[in-house]
Amino acid sequence: MRTLIKDAYVLTMNKKMDVFENGFVCFEDDQIIAVGPMAELPHSYDRVIDGKGTIVIPGMVNCHTHVGMIPFRSLGDDYRDRLRRFLFPLEKECMTRELAYASAKYAIAEMQLAGITTFMDMYYFEDTIAKATEEMGARAILGETVIDFPACDTTEAHGGLDYAKSYIPNWLGHERITPAIAPHAPNTNSKEALMEAGRIATEFDVPMTMHVSEMDYEMDYFQETYSMTPVSFLESIGLLNERFVLAHGIHLSDSDIDILRKYEVKIAHCIGANTKSAKGVARVKDLLEKGVTVGLGTDGPSSGNTLDLFTQMKLFANFHKTELKDRAAFPAQDIVKLATIGGASVLGLEDKIGSLETGKKADVVLIETESVNMFPIFDPYAVLVYSANASNVRDVFVDGKAIVRNKQLTQMNLSDIRQELASEMREFTNRAKEYR
Amino acid sequence: MRTLIKDAYVLTMNKKMDVFENGFVCFEDDQIIAVGPMAELPHSYDRVIDGKGTIVIPGMVNCHTHVGMIPFRSLGDDYRDRLRRFLFPLEKECMTRELAYASAKYAIAEMQLAGITTFMDMYYFEDTIAKATEEMGARAILGETVIDFPACDTTEAHGGLDYAKSYIPNWLGHERITPAIAPHAPNTNSKEALMEAGRIATEFDVPMTMHVSEMDYEMDYFQETYSMTPVSFLESIGLLNERFVLAHGIHLSDSDIDILRKYEVKIAHCIGANTKSAKGVARVKDLLEKGVTVGLGTDGPSSGNTLDLFTQMKLFANFHKTELKDRAAFPAQDIVKLATIGGASVLGLEDKIGSLETGKKADVVLIETESVNMFPIFDPYAVLVYSANASNVRDVFVDGKAIVRNKQLTQMNLSDIRQELASEMREFTNRAKEYR
Repeated sequence: MRTLIKDAYVLTMNKKMDVFENGFVCFEDDQIIAVGPMAELPHSYDRVIDGKGTIVIPGMVNCHTHVGMIPFRSLGDDYRDRLRRFLFPLEKECMTRELAYASAKYAIAEMQLAGITTFMDMYYFEDTIAKATEEMGARAILGETVIDFPACDTTEAHGGLDYAKSYIPNWLGHERITPAIAPHAPNTNSKEALMEAGRIATEFDVPMTMHVSEMDYEMDYFQETYSMTPVSFLESIGLLNERFVLAHGIHLSDSDIDILRKYEVKIAHCIGANTKSAKGVARVKDLLEKGVTVGLGTDGPSSGNTLDLFTQMKLFANFHKTELKDRAAFPAQDIVKLATIGGASVLGLEDKIGSLETGKKADVVLIETESVNMFPIFDPYAVLVYSANASNVRDVFVDGKAIVRNKQLTQMNLSDIRQELASEMREFTNRAKEYR
Repeated sequence: MRTLIKDAYVLTMNKKMDVFENGFVCFEDDQIIAVGPMAELPHSYDRVIDGKGTIVIPGMVNCHTHVGMIPFRSLGDDYRDRLRRFLFPLEKECMTRELAYASAKYAIAEMQLAGITTFMDMYYFEDTIAKATEEMGARAILGETVIDFPACDTTEAHGGLDYAKSYIPNWLGHERITPAIAPHAPNTNSKEALMEAGRIATEFDVPMTMHVSEMDYEMDYFQETYSMTPVSFLESIGLLNERFVLAHGIHLSDSDIDILRKYEVKIAHCIGANTKSAKGVARVKDLLEKGVTVGLGTDGPSSGNTLDLFTQMKLFANFHKTELKDRAAFPAQDIVKLATIGGASVLGLEDKIGSLETGKKADVVLIETESVNMFPIFDPYAVLVYSANASNVRDVFVDGKAIVRNKQLTQMNLSDIRQELASEMREFTNRAKEYR
């Protein structure tokens, strides 16, 4: 089936950053076959989408999240010891396979409604999250968490290693889903467990993702124990490579950045979560200048609270301009790049997604400009970064399939997904209230 | 007419910060007559609004904006010399009375749809902006700009002084609109003009607002010229008092803060505009600790880009927590206070608006929680600050009149307002394109 999106303001995000103010995008089944100005419209198509008044961009890429964590949203946000006071114990007590599945569906719906078509996840029960991702029609890399205590999906410390070994092979070769392994952090795993995770990633040739250089106590621990940074420690045990997606990276030294460049490690930058938790602002300008690939992440719904990249783009702009004391730093166009082709490159998917180009997958987002916040448009990138929010996303296609039309999910009913999650959350909610 | 909003999650923002998880708000004509739990529901009412699934808060207060500046939005955001390269010359050339009026209507609609019921403005043609405000049913303090060059509404430098003298008396005593005078900044007015503005404010007993301690070159100028800060300069010429609303205040010294406290000067803090333009983060914690009253401002639509306080609340949280290196600083509840009763106090309207209490004006906002970003709710303040956006605002009442119902303006058609603005903008748009 050949689909035409016509009369739209098309931001291709290709290498030349071509923009067609009155343009079209045409795809056949799951593949883009033409993008250009309306004057060069192809002749035949089976389905026409009126793009009038919309800005069309490639599907956005969320490089770091935890889709199982919707239940934690708005719980204890402003507590200093939130992670160990609320999150870890409640997760241990109340997170079940069924709850992770219901939460994942909800979180994926939220991302889709916000124009995110691809994401990288780190959570537990990652096989059931893969099932949810498949059902929702999303594209994702899904990392099973490894941590040094018995977690909700294992009875053993580092049980995620075995979990990953049985989960990963089942999803290899899937069209949209890539299994992965996700040690929680360098300081929440033994050296042996980290190295075993590395062996598993190599054996199956899958990505690894990890929270690194996020916590001040993590930095202190590696300094005191090894006289190393977490990054140099990970290098020393052979864990860094081009399939490694490093989340956060707030506290990076110059030599850390050199190491990341050398091994072609990719960075998932989570400005919203990092600043809400007062941890600081990662050195993104330095990373990019040294040639390190960076994308944006929402972090989990309890850390970043919203699962959309509009919030992240706006926070990115204001934080990095202020850090650099330069309002011209990171013009809006560069920030939209990070949210699209940048993220695709972080996930190693830059040949398939991240821009609107012939031969790429038809992951396409239409953003309406009828709403009051979207006028006037002198610079469409500025509109996306400084004015837009998730509610402006009108239509979303993944692999050419319509996932969202007119701001509604097409294949699912959001209120059903919410109902399912709410009923799975009952015990969680009761326990959570005792924690307040 | 007696209106009842029932079955809602009511955040009163009163002194005790009463919250009714299953509560009601009842108002008669323009005045709140009862607020409480559903168990204490009053017996008779003429109109019932089903508040199920909504969070109800007092109308939000935007302490600083420029409603005439919608035409400039998304134009030249990332240029270092934006103000003098784009804004001043285009304003001079293309801003007309008709354009200011059309822009004001649009901007007020945008604020109303975002739950802002009261705002303070600084712009030109402020009499026509007063007319727009009256027609839109909003509450506002509207300051006529004074600046040291012939601006769009005068042929003389400091022509705003005469403009103000003829504008102000016409609007004194209006129920919802308070006229005011607004010298642009200490460094863009002569000392004599500032003092004359002070005399006008005193003569008519109206507020004054001004951009102060915003620009680094402003700080340098006062240091070099007077060996003073802008705040101490304004004190020295007798301009500071409890009716003075100081916008920005980014670069305040300890003694500036003492001066502001002494004269009971109020602060309009514009975190979004200040950080997007890389100017820095005002010392709000220090101001509040010293007893200075602070509210939030969006700044103009070209500076802050969105005219909603959800964006500002989120940026406020992340910036101030990060500045203070403390995730527990400014818990969400304190930030919602700034956006409501804090803003009301800045504008000297704390006896009339800013909280849901018997005897106050019925400025009431209902925020839906059906949308995907609004679940779950462990802490309603956290939901408003970290998750919500302007699109979640469902209903808005000002003086008991329904201004927004089901996310639509009730008395106006947004597309008509936009059409009117777009046609008034034609010349502006053509000229603006030459500036790019």
